[in-house]
Amino acid sequence: MRDQFHEDLETITDQLVEMTRLAGSAISRATTALLDADVHLAESVIEADRHLDEIRIELDETAIDLLARQQPVATDLRIIVTAMQMSTDLERMGDLARHVAKVARLRVPDSAVPAELRSHVLKMGQVAGRIVADCGSVIAGKDVNGAARLEKDDDAMDDLHRELFQVLLDDKSALTRLQVLDLTLVGRYYERFADHAVSVARRVIYLVTGEYAPSVDHEDDEDAADLDTITRA
Amino acid sequence: MRDQFHEDLETITDQLVEMTRLAGSAISRATTALLDADVHLAESVIEADRHLDEIRIELDETAIDLLARQQPVATDLRIIVTAMQMSTDLERMGDLARHVAKVARLRVPDSAVPAELRSHVLKMGQVAGRIVADCGSVIAGKDVNGAARLEKDDDAMDDLHRELFQVLLDDKSALTRLQVLDLTLVGRYYERFADHAVSVARRVIYLVTGEYAPSVDHEDDEDAADLDTITRA
Repeated sequence: MRDQFHEDLETITDQLVEMTRLAGSAISRATTALLDADVHLAESVIEADRHLDEIRIELDETAIDLLARQQPVATDLRIIVTAMQMSTDLERMGDLARHVAKVARLRVPDSAVPAELRSHVLKMGQVAGRIVADCGSVIAGKDVNGAARLEKDDDAMDDLHRELFQVLLDDKSALTRLQVLDLTLVGRYYERFADHAVSVARRVIYLVTGEYAPSVDHEDDEDAADLDTITRA
Repeated sequence: MRDQFHEDLETITDQLVEMTRLAGSAISRATTALLDADVHLAESVIEADRHLDEIRIELDETAIDLLARQQPVATDLRIIVTAMQMSTDLERMGDLARHVAKVARLRVPDSAVPAELRSHVLKMGQVAGRIVADCGSVIAGKDVNGAARLEKDDDAMDDLHRELFQVLLDDKSALTRLQVLDLTLVGRYYERFADHAVSVARRVIYLVTGEYAPSVDHEDDEDAADLDTITRA
C-alpha cells in the first residue's frame, strides 16, 4: 500500500512538471503570436489552455483521492496539499499566457506591439519562458539551487516591467492610447506569470527545507518603491 | 470527537466570513482613498492587508491539522479542501484592494481618477463592495440563491469594465498617458476582485449542490467578444 502511495505522489509530481512544460510552451508561443500578429498561433494557444485545466482537475482529483484513501499525516500530507496549491498557480500561468494570446488575436492584422517595443516584449517572453522552465526543474529535482536562479529571473522580469512603463509614459515615444492600454495589460500578464512561478518554486523549497518564504506579492510592495518613482506624475 | 470536528469546521467558516468582511472593508476604503486622494486611508488599507493574510495562514493551519487528526473522507474532506481554496481567493481579493490603495497613494496630492471618471470608478467600488458582501452571505448561509445575485453583480462589473475601456480609448476624453495606464490597471483590479468573489461563491454552490460551474476566467473568454469589439483598433 505504501508503495502505491509513493507511486501516486510521483504521478502528481509528473503532472506538475507537465503543467510547467505546457505553461512554458503557451507563453513562448503567445509571445510569438503577439509579435508576429499570428492569429492561428494565438488561437492554438487559447485552445491548448483547456489541456492545462484538465490536468489540474485530474491532479486535484488524485490528491483528494489520496487524502481519502491513505489518510497521510505530517510531511506526506503537506506534500499533497502543497501540490494542489501549485496546480492552482500553474493553471493561472496558463490563463495569463492565454490572455497574452487574446491581445495578439485582437489586433490582427496589426501587432499590438509597436516597433520600438518589440525587442523589449520579446525579452519579457524569454524571461517568462526561462522562469517556467526553471520552475519545472525545481519541481522535478526538488532543486533548491534552481530556485535561486528563478528568483534572479523574477528580478529581471520586474526590471523589464518597470522599463516598459517608462516607455509607455515617455512622451517621446509615439504611442496610441490603445497601445498604452494593451501594453499595460500585457506587461501585467508577464509580471504575474513570473510571480506565480516564483510562488510554485517557493512552495517546493518550503517542502524541502521547511523554511517559509514571504509571498511574492507582498515582497513586491517593498520593491514597488522603484516602480512608484517611475510612474509618479 | 465528531463534535469537536464540526466545531472546527464552524471556526473555518467563521474565518472565511471574516475574510469577506475584511476584503469588503478594504475595497470600499481603497475606492474612497483613490477618489479623495486620501493618503492616510490608502496607507491604512495597505497595512490592514496583513491581517487578512494572517487569517488565511491560520485557516490553512487549522485545515491541515483537521486533515491530519480527523482524517475526514467524502463530503467533510471536500469541505476542508474547498475552504483552503476559498481562502486563497479571499486573500487575493485583499491583495487587489491593496493594489488599488497603492495607486491612490502614488498620485497624492492628486487623485488618479480624472473628474469625468469619478462616478464610474465609484460604481465599480460599490459593485465590488456588494459582491463581496454577497459572498459572505453565501458562505455563512450556504445560500445558493445569494449566489445568483452575485453573478448579476459580476455581470454589472464586466459592463463597467468595458465602459471604462471605452472612455479610456475615446479621443474626446482628455486623459494623460499616466491616467490611461493607472485606470487600465485599476479597472483590471476591480474586475479580478469580482472574479475571485464569484469563484468563492461557486465553490460553495458546488459543495451544496454537487454541481460544478465553469471557472470564471474561462467564461470571460466567451464574454470577451464584447470587450474585444470595443477595444478593437
